[in-house]
Amino acid sequence: MEVVNDLLNYNNLKIVQNTDWFNFSLDSVLLANFVKVNNKQKIIDFCSGNAPIPLFLSTKTKAKIIGVELQKPIFDLAVKSVKLNKLEDQISIINVDVKTLSKIYETDTFDLITCNPPYFKYDNNDNINDNVIKAIARHEIKLNLEDIFKCARKILKNNGKIAIVHKTDRLIDIIFYMKNNNLEPKRLQFIYPFSDSKSNLVIIEGAKNAKPGLIVEKGIIVHNKDGSYTNEILKIFNGGTK
Amino acid sequence: MEVVNDLLNYNNLKIVQNTDWFNFSLDSVLLANFVKVNNKQKIIDFCSGNAPIPLFLSTKTKAKIIGVELQKPIFDLAVKSVKLNKLEDQISIINVDVKTLSKIYETDTFDLITCNPPYFKYDNNDNINDNVIKAIARHEIKLNLEDIFKCARKILKNNGKIAIVHKTDRLIDIIFYMKNNNLEPKRLQFIYPFSDSKSNLVIIEGAKNAKPGLIVEKGIIVHNKDGSYTNEILKIFNGGTK
Repeated sequence: MEVVNDLLNYNNLKIVQNTDWFNFSLDSVLLANFVKVNNKQKIIDFCSGNAPIPLFLSTKTKAKIIGVELQKPIFDLAVKSVKLNKLEDQISIINVDVKTLSKIYETDTFDLITCNPPYFKYDNNDNINDNVIKAIARHEIKLNLEDIFKCARKILKNNGKIAIVHKTDRLIDIIFYMKNNNLEPKRLQFIYPFSDSKSNLVIIEGAKNAKPGLIVEKGIIVHNKDGSYTNEILKIFNGGTK
Repeated sequence: MEVVNDLLNYNNLKIVQNTDWFNFSLDSVLLANFVKVNNKQKIIDFCSGNAPIPLFLSTKTKAKIIGVELQKPIFDLAVKSVKLNKLEDQISIINVDVKTLSKIYETDTFDLITCNPPYFKYDNNDNINDNVIKAIARHEIKLNLEDIFKCARKILKNNGKIAIVHKTDRLIDIIFYMKNNNLEPKRLQFIYPFSDSKSNLVIIEGAKNAKPGLIVEKGIIVHNKDGSYTNEILKIFNGGTK
């Protein structure tokens, strides 16, 4: 079912979703909150889905943002969302495969890549969800970590940044593929569901050809003990951390 | 000046220190608190200093523990501490260079290595502290990260673990050297000085020849806003988390 929801609480940004596939996730909001932007950057969002990250980023910067979404029905939702918010001048959604971007754009084009990729490894024998659209969005069927960083290495400018959100248990793989592609991990942030739980999500930012030296930002705790959102999460939804 | 201090609050463990060099640090206590021990392990502590980690571990396990300290005056303090606590049967301190351990011990000997190493990179041109004992304990003059993991790879049993505490900004290097030595990072814990600050310390545990898959434990916040220790730190000093 196609529905229109508020993206955040403090402005009128709307997002078009299809509840048969998935809703935009907290993960995307946390990633968009994490990245540092300015008005001169060229920004591209991989695996854009229904465009929550470009929409959120439009509240932080006037820079042009490209969203890349492979799956046509999801691409259509993203385009609808951009139009609904009258952001066509700032956000362009393109319906292509991330693996082809280095043929579309010249090397050293972008200052910032964001990406909320499929989280789960895929094995041909896996019994994936029979909802194919959802399966492709969630599993590394069409795109894996290595593809993402190989592409980033080409289209990022020198010292350009890529920031991705992922499951914490994949962090070592992520660091490995980044290093292999001359993307030095420079900034991490761990998300903990509760104050006394292990981290389930990590945001990691690397910079092309940068020197080593890592910053781990303050941890983000999502829920209070009673399950409600913590003040820091509410602040993000309310635009308080910009 | 040589002094005797309490190591923890809840038992009678004493530690002999020389205030001209350094006092045992919270870092060592956090590392000893982090590792999982049982009574059947063979345990060795690299860069043992005045032996805070072996002493703390003796409260968690009856396993034999070897402490390795290169600097004779510090080694002497460690031996004094062990005797003072009547732990000679459990803890042996040896006055050797970690780089020589693979000649002393057979390959596949140990189940667990702990290490609170020198934190700072050393360059021959660096103007280090003229207190040589302190300088060697703090800078990678006699031992660096690569030396530590090369040695660990040899003397650890298959699936044996190495846990080290270090400055967070060196994490990517640490992961790189671990992976290069077939030590798969399996468990991390970040230490944050305050709830709203970046992490300054990280504890990282790897296992020899293990499969990928990382756990990031709950973050530890050291201080309340007023500078006092948080309850979770006090619990560790009071033996509450075993």
